[in-house]
Amino acid sequence: MRRALLLAATPGVPVGPNPRVGCVLLGVDGDPVGEGFHRGAGTDHAEVAAIAAAGDRARGATAVVTLEPCHHTGRTGPCTAALQTAGVTRVVYAQADPNRAASGGAQALAAAGVDVVGGVLADEALDLNRVWTFAMERQRPFVTWKFATTLDGRSAATDGTSRWVSSPQSRHDTHRLRALSDTMLVGTNTVAVDDPLLTVRDDHDVALPHQPLRAVMGLRDLPADRRVFNGDAESLRLRTRDPHEALAELWQHERRHVFLEGGPTLAAAFVRAGLVDEVVAYLAPKLLGAGRNAVADLGVTTMVDALELEVDDVSVVGPDVRVRGRI
Amino acid sequence: MRRALLLAATPGVPVGPNPRVGCVLLGVDGDPVGEGFHRGAGTDHAEVAAIAAAGDRARGATAVVTLEPCHHTGRTGPCTAALQTAGVTRVVYAQADPNRAASGGAQALAAAGVDVVGGVLADEALDLNRVWTFAMERQRPFVTWKFATTLDGRSAATDGTSRWVSSPQSRHDTHRLRALSDTMLVGTNTVAVDDPLLTVRDDHDVALPHQPLRAVMGLRDLPADRRVFNGDAESLRLRTRDPHEALAELWQHERRHVFLEGGPTLAAAFVRAGLVDEVVAYLAPKLLGAGRNAVADLGVTTMVDALELEVDDVSVVGPDVRVRGRI
Repeated sequence: MRRALLLAATPGVPVGPNPRVGCVLLGVDGDPVGEGFHRGAGTDHAEVAAIAAAGDRARGATAVVTLEPCHHTGRTGPCTAALQTAGVTRVVYAQADPNRAASGGAQALAAAGVDVVGGVLADEALDLNRVWTFAMERQRPFVTWKFATTLDGRSAATDGTSRWVSSPQSRHDTHRLRALSDTMLVGTNTVAVDDPLLTVRDDHDVALPHQPLRAVMGLRDLPADRRVFNGDAESLRLRTRDPHEALAELWQHERRHVFLEGGPTLAAAFVRAGLVDEVVAYLAPKLLGAGRNAVADLGVTTMVDALELEVDDVSVVGPDVRVRGRI
Repeated sequence: MRRALLLAATPGVPVGPNPRVGCVLLGVDGDPVGEGFHRGAGTDHAEVAAIAAAGDRARGATAVVTLEPCHHTGRTGPCTAALQTAGVTRVVYAQADPNRAASGGAQALAAAGVDVVGGVLADEALDLNRVWTFAMERQRPFVTWKFATTLDGRSAATDGTSRWVSSPQSRHDTHRLRALSDTMLVGTNTVAVDDPLLTVRDDHDVALPHQPLRAVMGLRDLPADRRVFNGDAESLRLRTRDPHEALAELWQHERRHVFLEGGPTLAAAFVRAGLVDEVVAYLAPKLLGAGRNAVADLGVTTMVDALELEVDDVSVVGPDVRVRGRI
């Protein structure tokens, strides 16, 4: 299973809405006879890749796989069928499939006479696909809200200047985190006022080959020449002000992880709707004493009702401090 | 000199306005014949303590001392005279005396025929007395401003509740930092509204034996029953609103390190006057979205004029993050 987890964690894959999965086939002698991992939607699932590598040696083999084999036909056929066709007689998996449409694999295999064991190193498998699992369980994308602020909670000075609150190092770090999501979401106001490009660029300001979707939500009409609508990456207009509706539409587009970078008002709407799952705050060691607040009214009126974060990580990024936490 | 620096760094001393100083006397054979350190105002300076320990063996000895020997009569006599009387023929010191009143020791010793070498491990000696040296050079106390805030810069919710922004761990940590200063300073408004005790207490809420001065500045009259005026520690009323005047009066009281814990208005007055030297911010991983700002108007109107901190330390304190920096 450790080998299967390593395969699943192959850097750079999968691209798209699917989880990371790795699989090792152990032959009748207990030796590895094939292995594989999932490279992204539309390509072979890990089990199928391992079976292809093993060839005839899959007959009588044990499949060790990080996720319960799927039992539905999507872009590819069900793995339960592929495993049986190949003659696999035993399946050991880590995480149960949280995907309602695809689950039932373990039960189907057992019913067909395959020896099935689940839950082996399940926590480690879950760690690999935490965001995907959350999204599958809630049937909506996981939402990371990122903001940058001075130590006294300001995102702009009284004259409106906001460049730059955080350091170049923090801005590079933001691009790194953007690249881990599949969608960047802003409001029409941000696009109208700031005209951001919203692509993911490396430290030399060069666009990465794979770009998240650039989603813009709100009812306001926007000029077509805004940079977010250029050809550098996909764009999507969400004609709603309702966070629930926006996430539902993104879910239909198979989006699992939204990186929310809109202004304070949009972020506050998501917080009030209970739709922010993770916060990433870049704190610049500066004081303004006045100016625009980084966080808008959340509907909290008394200290004990303050929105509390369970902090996962505190890091120094250049001169700034980055705090990551879950709500 | 390393031994002298260790002596100077003896925990718990000196109490009061004086620097940490250590001294080792090396006899005519080069072996240590006596050592000493300064225990606080009114007690022997390090050189005198070492001479007392060495007795007759001080004759012809070399004094290795972390600070240039003093050349003035304060609560005790000048060390330059004591060294000569004891027959010390060579003096090696680390840091030059930044105290205008007491300096000139090296010159006086050299003029009297003593062999004098200065600047040995001077940086390490300076590190031991950084706050004291700063105070001596500026002829005013060093000012540390401490505040606690949510991640979005709030110190109270819209209904006025402010207990507690930061965690018990951060409040204990604040007491630890208070104990390193010799003065706590608040405004009359804080005393009127919050009625703080302003003593330094350990983790079990027991007052420490040595307490900093509790200074209250402002023109407003205060009821005598405020807790800050009880007998638990010394108190001082500063009848001024001017930060320069307040620090001048504290300097006359031989105060070297002010721990500023007043509200946002008082802190802003010190920042505007250029009289905040160090900032300690406790950031609680909470969001309020509205409420009182932790930092008041600093006179900054545009981003490039933001007050920037050179961060010395970022620490996780319980659930909170502590950022320390110099302005």
